[in-house]
Amino acid sequence: MQRYLLTIAYDGTDFAGWQRQPGVETIQAWLETVLARIFGQPVPVHGAGRTDAGVHALRQRAHVCLPPVVDAGKLIRSLNCLLPDSIAVRSIEPVPENFHARFSAIGKRYVYRCRVSRQPPVHDRRFVHWVKVPLDLERMRQAACLLEGEHDFAAFATNPGYPRTRGTVRRLSRLRLIRRSRGYDLMAQGEGFLYNMVRTIAGTLIDVGRGRREPTGMTEILESRDRNNAGMNAPACGLFLVRVLYPPTALDRSQEVR
Amino acid sequence: MQRYLLTIAYDGTDFAGWQRQPGVETIQAWLETVLARIFGQPVPVHGAGRTDAGVHALRQRAHVCLPPVVDAGKLIRSLNCLLPDSIAVRSIEPVPENFHARFSAIGKRYVYRCRVSRQPPVHDRRFVHWVKVPLDLERMRQAACLLEGEHDFAAFATNPGYPRTRGTVRRLSRLRLIRRSRGYDLMAQGEGFLYNMVRTIAGTLIDVGRGRREPTGMTEILESRDRNNAGMNAPACGLFLVRVLYPPTALDRSQEVR
Repeated sequence: MQRYLLTIAYDGTDFAGWQRQPGVETIQAWLETVLARIFGQPVPVHGAGRTDAGVHALRQRAHVCLPPVVDAGKLIRSLNCLLPDSIAVRSIEPVPENFHARFSAIGKRYVYRCRVSRQPPVHDRRFVHWVKVPLDLERMRQAACLLEGEHDFAAFATNPGYPRTRGTVRRLSRLRLIRRSRGYDLMAQGEGFLYNMVRTIAGTLIDVGRGRREPTGMTEILESRDRNNAGMNAPACGLFLVRVLYPPTALDRSQEVR
Repeated sequence: MQRYLLTIAYDGTDFAGWQRQPGVETIQAWLETVLARIFGQPVPVHGAGRTDAGVHALRQRAHVCLPPVVDAGKLIRSLNCLLPDSIAVRSIEPVPENFHARFSAIGKRYVYRCRVSRQPPVHDRRFVHWVKVPLDLERMRQAACLLEGEHDFAAFATNPGYPRTRGTVRRLSRLRLIRRSRGYDLMAQGEGFLYNMVRTIAGTLIDVGRGRREPTGMTEILESRDRNNAGMNAPACGLFLVRVLYPPTALDRSQEVR
């Protein structure tokens, strides 16, 4: 058996999230079902992280153990034929035996997409959060600056009952607002994120953009450690997992002790 | 009663096309239902043209007769609240009493979108036709040049049983291939189109791009007037009605005789 790293894109709209759960359709369950069908044996799929119901991915990552794959292109085509149209395997590459999609990751990048328009986004509606009122991007950028860096993000997590070992301190290495033709993207990169953290940051920054909160209020919210002080979770449809970051050594099979 | 021109965007994926038909969901039927609900009386909706099942529109046009509208913005918001997410009214403007969405039109522009990639287009899958093999754009452009202009397009129409009065001669004023980051758009503009003409042209040009037909073959296909000689209808999901063209005088209410 050889360990492989999968890169997976999905439209999360019609799924109950990444993680296998009884009675609902999930991306992990689909991948495991289809791999088991091709290989005639159970193939556990270990994702880099869970994404919630309705959240999308451009490049989610997962590792699997498979009998040696001779023709990766053919395997990808077979997988994509059996998977629903809303999930696609983009690549399969061999990785060292000690590689783990989740534990080897050193960071993740998310993008939260907002459409700012009077008219509803008919064609992009599954992939943007529609904001009907103009947003002041400069105010949002000021607020984002205050959230960048290492902070206790308890106020931005839905369920802050985290194990004492890790706590709720996270390092948000980048939080940027990028203007797009019909709205903006919020790009968030960090080593790790608390539950719903990106969506709560997005919802809070939208409040700032609408003038409902002051950019300087971010410091107070962080210090309060109280979820009630942050804004609403912005809807799942705007959120994309765009990249999982690994150190080059984790992927380098030439370093492997054989 | 005043005549109004509506501009409508839709994702045609889940509809049986524009035209009202019993027992299925159509865009015209939705608009008529919602307008009747708001105005408390039947409001026939006259479209600029039918689009087929699965075909999209960025700016379809239709006229309606309504009691004078005081606040167009409010009416648009009401309509869009009652319409499904996949249909949106973009504008409502008063037009002269003799304006007709279909008969006043002097042309239409369609775009057929192709994605050329090995991987299935997960996020755009409802709005592109996926071509798995590389296409030679120069060959396709040569072929498109031969189709531009006035020709008998009988070979490119699904059902050429057209009334003798109009026949199957049409003027294709523009047929252009535009390279996009992950594929290309075929833009077709003309005064009028035969049934399935854009999709058959798209299917035939894809054959040319794949090397299955010669660009010079277009002339022979046209001359044959035989549908069997052209390529397949490319799938509906790639087709967008992007513009309906009217002469400025048709929309100008100051010219109206009162």
